[in-house]
Amino acid sequence: MSSQALKILVIGGSAAGPKAAAKARRMDEHASITLIQKEADLSMASCGFPYYVGGVFDDRNMLICTPAGIVRDPNFFDKAKRIEALVETEALSIDREAKTVTCLHLPSGETQVLPYDRLVIATGASPLYPQVPGSDLDGIRTLHSLGDADALRAVRDQGKVTKAVVVGGGLIGFEVCEALHLAGIQTTVIEKTGQILPFLDPDLAKLVENHVRSKEADIITNNGVAAFLGEDGKLNGVKLDNGTELPCELAVIAVGVRPNVGLAKAAGLEIGDKGGIAVDDFMRTSDPDIYAAGDCVECRSLINNETVRAPYGDIANLQGRVIGQNLIEPESASFPGITHTGICKIFDFTVGFTGLSEAAAREAGFDIETATVSGLDIPGYMNGQLLVSKMVADRKSGRVIGFQCIGPGDASKRVATVAMAIRGKLTVEDLNNADLPYAPPYSLALDHVIVSAHVLDNKLSGRMQGISVSEVKQRVDSGADCFILDTRSPQEFEEMRLGIGETLIPLGALRGRLDELPADKDKEIILYCKISLRGYEAAAALQAYGWTQVKVMEGGIMAWPYPREK
Amino acid sequence: MSSQALKILVIGGSAAGPKAAAKARRMDEHASITLIQKEADLSMASCGFPYYVGGVFDDRNMLICTPAGIVRDPNFFDKAKRIEALVETEALSIDREAKTVTCLHLPSGETQVLPYDRLVIATGASPLYPQVPGSDLDGIRTLHSLGDADALRAVRDQGKVTKAVVVGGGLIGFEVCEALHLAGIQTTVIEKTGQILPFLDPDLAKLVENHVRSKEADIITNNGVAAFLGEDGKLNGVKLDNGTELPCELAVIAVGVRPNVGLAKAAGLEIGDKGGIAVDDFMRTSDPDIYAAGDCVECRSLINNETVRAPYGDIANLQGRVIGQNLIEPESASFPGITHTGICKIFDFTVGFTGLSEAAAREAGFDIETATVSGLDIPGYMNGQLLVSKMVADRKSGRVIGFQCIGPGDASKRVATVAMAIRGKLTVEDLNNADLPYAPPYSLALDHVIVSAHVLDNKLSGRMQGISVSEVKQRVDSGADCFILDTRSPQEFEEMRLGIGETLIPLGALRGRLDELPADKDKEIILYCKISLRGYEAAAALQAYGWTQVKVMEGGIMAWPYPREK
Ligand SMILES: Cc1cc2nc3c(=O)[nH]c(=O)nc-3n(C[C@H](O)[C@H](O)[C@H](O)COP(=O)(O)OP(=O)(O)OC[C@H]3O[C@@H](n4cnc5c(N)ncnc54)[C@H](O)[C@@H]3O)c2cc1C
Ligand SMILES: Cc1cc2nc3c(=O)[nH]c(=O)nc-3n(C[C@H](O)[C@H](O)[C@H](O)COP(=O)(O)OP(=O)(O)OC[C@H]3O[C@@H](n4cnc5c(N)ncnc54)[C@H](O)[C@@H]3O)c2cc1C
Ligand SMILES: CC(C)(COP(=O)(O)OP(=O)(O)OC[C@H]1O[C@@H](n2cnc3c(N)ncnc32)[C@H](O)[C@@H]1OP(=O)(O)O)[C@@H](O)C(=O)NCCC(=O)NCCS
Ligand SMILES: CC(C)(COP(=O)(O)OP(=O)(O)OC[C@H]1O[C@@H](n2cnc3c(N)ncnc32)[C@H](O)[C@@H]1OP(=O)(O)O)[C@@H](O)C(=O)NCCC(=O)NCCS
Ligand SMILES: [Ca+2]
Ligand SMILES: [Ca+2]
Repeated sequence: MSSQALKILVIGGSAAGPKAAAKARRMDEHASITLIQKEADLSMASCGFPYYVGGVFDDRNMLICTPAGIVRDPNFFDKAKRIEALVETEALSIDREAKTVTCLHLPSGETQVLPYDRLVIATGASPLYPQVPGSDLDGIRTLHSLGDADALRAVRDQGKVTKAVVVGGGLIGFEVCEALHLAGIQTTVIEKTGQILPFLDPDLAKLVENHVRSKEADIITNNGVAAFLGEDGKLNGVKLDNGTELPCELAVIAVGVRPNVGLAKAAGLEIGDKGGIAVDDFMRTSDPDIYAAGDCVECRSLINNETVRAPYGDIANLQGRVIGQNLIEPESASFPGITHTGICKIFDFTVGFTGLSEAAAREAGFDIETATVSGLDIPGYMNGQLLVSKMVADRKSGRVIGFQCIGPGDASKRVATVAMAIRGKLTVEDLNNADLPYAPPYSLALDHVIVSAHVLDNKLSGRMQGISVSEVKQRVDSGADCFILDTRSPQEFEEMRLGIGETLIPLGALRGRLDELPADKDKEIILYCKISLRGYEAAAALQAYGWTQVKVMEGGIMAWPYPREK
Repeated sequence: MSSQALKILVIGGSAAGPKAAAKARRMDEHASITLIQKEADLSMASCGFPYYVGGVFDDRNMLICTPAGIVRDPNFFDKAKRIEALVETEALSIDREAKTVTCLHLPSGETQVLPYDRLVIATGASPLYPQVPGSDLDGIRTLHSLGDADALRAVRDQGKVTKAVVVGGGLIGFEVCEALHLAGIQTTVIEKTGQILPFLDPDLAKLVENHVRSKEADIITNNGVAAFLGEDGKLNGVKLDNGTELPCELAVIAVGVRPNVGLAKAAGLEIGDKGGIAVDDFMRTSDPDIYAAGDCVECRSLINNETVRAPYGDIANLQGRVIGQNLIEPESASFPGITHTGICKIFDFTVGFTGLSEAAAREAGFDIETATVSGLDIPGYMNGQLLVSKMVADRKSGRVIGFQCIGPGDASKRVATVAMAIRGKLTVEDLNNADLPYAPPYSLALDHVIVSAHVLDNKLSGRMQGISVSEVKQRVDSGADCFILDTRSPQEFEEMRLGIGETLIPLGALRGRLDELPADKDKEIILYCKISLRGYEAAAALQAYGWTQVKVMEGGIMAWPYPREK
């Protein structure tokens, strides 16, 4: 240990900053560690804001306290962590030559210049805001700071707002939508692009859309905000690009975030091509005495080695910890990169993803195969719930490079499982035989993840030819000449059916009724059942009997996001 | 496709056998596939038996039907899978020279000789039975066949049995215990060895014991069955090795299974040193035309390359599928091995494991480090539940080679996650920075798996010195001279405390009260808190202030399985 205590300054007091500071303290009891935080609060669990707003819990302190119930205020940081936390204090500039940071104490207006040996920038990100007329009206908010959470929670508690618009159909947009819905507010999410939840592929995103609509929240896609409308400075509606006016007393903007790189930029630190502070694997900026972590940086994708921004709470903490260690033992820890893993609860659906979507993988230049699979999470006799997922593999290496999973079933477990498989660079073949924890309360004998690998394996090896629900819809809409076969039982057909010109031949009867199939063996035949397991079995048989264009509609009726006859 | 249809015989009609047959059918519509099954039923979900017995569901058909509700009887196999299923038919012998199997139709007593090109042996295992006096009394059962399940379900439905003894404290023993408990039967599990659930290390197993006892089911360890007692041929008690007599009307034996290798052995096939049929990675026996899978074989551990038996339903299905593929395209699929992953619900606890326990790893000769960690599965504000786990790493490679996780929290997800990490041969360092799906309904910002890796990392790098609860108990019981420090708040101390001579100094006050610590800096100091997070932080500080023997009691009070003062 050096005789002179190391002076560490950390700018930003929410996730990455405090984590770096706390870890540094554990590494070195004698360092001088100071946290500079603009806001009044510290260590806020931002990810919990939607649940506080939605009334899942009522004690605001739970957002800023330890598991033992102690609020993480400057006194806590002083006593428990021996970290000096300067709140309501903004870092104004960094002098890299002098190794100082100039700070402004916001309440008093006083500035002070703090010296550092090592500096951490964890300034986070700021919410983006559409630049349209009326955006200064009262009643327009984001949900980013604890102040925002307080304000939206007050909306719930006051119970006056009846209609709200959420601008932006991403994770936070839908969390806000659900929270407002729980507050009894009629909510519409508007999304500029054609699709909500951009990390999903469109077919799965549509299933989530349907689910949200089934909860009586509305979604409008392909439509941005043209203007906020109001009277007497108060919001009373949102005007969309197509002219529609949606009356509402509240609008919440959730169109993404922009990394806070102003300080770093002004200090001459390198900014990466994705707009975040550039850091190496040690989370060190272009100045070796300055580290940066969290929403303000960009990092590396472990899938394709590209730099990406990953504004997630877990990543901020992981990176913060790496810094905390390196502050005391330089280059002793590294952050290798991310696997694009995230999750969100949207009403009764879990929506999770890891790795690349089909679209992202293609854009990144991968030659891929995908499999969309519907199935239960646990056995029917244990009251299993549906999962619909899509697994993406790189043809060349056989590696799994993406997995999306949605539905009322336990998607969280499946996404975590595949995230680890991706981290381990496992191939579809590896997943084919994975030894997972099986018992009826927890999974099928062959877990959804394994079945997904099996189906992908079947497609990669040419044993199954798939067709997506959207391609089938196109065929149907364009009146294409194909034979559509539903392989379920007559009873199932009575209860629910697509009504897209299909013929019903139950799998069990198929081999005896081959004469009802197209005489032209090269005619396209599209098969499905509820989840397309029986569709797949039927397809294997038909191929053996000489039909050459036999395709399984992946995911079956459970993955069909369009209107059904029944 | 060959002009002559391939003749495939499969012996065993529950999991591995039907899976191999079904996969072979999908690979080759023209093969002749015959399933030989001794019992009347086919494709039984044995793993579901305890839930049927316990009344979690009442429709017996759910144990043998497809997700679409069709019972998998010979008609189903014929129609949907075009597989001939001969039920109530026992395979008596295999003539490898003639390539035939002699079968006995049990109802009629007729035998027939069936020819094969390729044969699959999937004869499963048989329950072990203690050879003690009285073992032929009425009222002694196993839970292995569907017939057993019917009988035990009838016990529930009749409501006459009031007391039961379960012999054997493994997974199935506790599933049966819970099922009988749900049927209102006072149940005692007796276990010959000193510990229930042998795949767990003792400290964790004891926590499960406590949980079971809290449900008013009893457990007696270190005690085998000396005799079954009865009158008029009917069981009325169990006598233990130590002479104790437990009155009961029902005893269920669950002391493990023995692979059914009789047929294979008689045919001269190689039997492995673990007592199962020996197979290669293609699941081929020593006769290249004969495959074997499921409970009757032994396979390879991916952790230490040893042969092991893995009598699990998922493994049976995975291996069956590999065979189904190889039957048609030899050597096209392989089963690389298992990672020892399993799980079980025991009342409100999930008990899961993957890889090796500390004991197993040491026995296998690994130089290991372990970390026992308590923590919530999701945030407190989302009503997080406790998990207690132990992660095991190989020092040399840094690889994670084991993980046990128990508690009311979602252990299933964590075990699946680590199972995949083990499959990917990931190191503790890899897990340190894993990108998992984080949102408050699903995990902490740093998931329990990651925190477990962090703690293990701290131990591996010497930043934390741990001591297990059982070592602390030994210290206390032997009156060892050590200083025990509880670092929680006075309020927490009032509500719950160990009472093992500890001193209370809250973490936040510790640095100001160093004078209350032993003057002898080399005295052993043991720290803990509720989960030992604050204990660890305090330990880091004390080390910096010169104490040299500072140990964190791993898992904290939540991992303490012994009686507490409060
Ligand atoms: C509503 C909501 C829900 C979310 N849900 C999830 C989720 O479910 N899962 C997930 O992984 N992520 C989620 N996130 C994202 C997650 O909260 C962020 O990734 C994480 O907070 C980033 O941490 P950070 O420390 O980098 O930045 P921030 O948390 O943004 O903290 C930066 C801090 O720095 C301070 N600061 C900035 N500039 C200065 C300055 N010049 N001087 C002093 N202080 C300064 C700011 O005031 C701020 O407090 C969610 C975010 C929100 C808003
Ligand atoms: C109560 C219970 C709970 C369980 N829970 C779980 C769990 O939660 N998770 C898990 O992974 N595993 C569990 N298992 C284990 C799992 O059920 C087995 O691993 C799996 O069934 C093995 O499949 P198998 O096909 O190899 O053998 P089996 O299922 O035993 O099937 C073998 C079949 O072959 C037939 N047979 C044997 N010899 C002949 C012959 N000579 N001729 C004709 N037929 C023959 C038998 O009648 C039998 O039906 C549980 C088992 C039980 C009994
Ligand atoms: C909490 C915060 C201040 C970080 O402080 P911290 O002291 O590192 O975090 P914790 O109090 O959880 O302590 C974690 C330490 O205890 C260790 N630990 C956790 N559980 C343990 C247990 N049962 N036994 C032993 N050690 C344990 C961890 O490994 C870690 O130590 P390490 O980093 O040296 O390995 C910072 O993460 C924060 O401000 N979080 C709130 C905001 C946030 O995360 N927002 C984004 C998501 S909503
Ligand atoms: C069911 C059983 C007969 C096997 O038959 P099976 O036809 O292989 O099994 P399934 O009906 O589930 O069909 C699985 C096939 O459909 C595929 N599939 C599953 N879901 C699919 C979907 N949504 N879309 C397309 N294909 C799908 C699978 O990949 C598999 O095909 P493959 O092996 O060629 O890759 C056998 O597993 C069995 O008897 N099980 C019950 C007993 C048991 O498992 N006991 C132990 C545990 S309790
Ligand atoms: Ca993540
Ligand atoms: Ca398993």
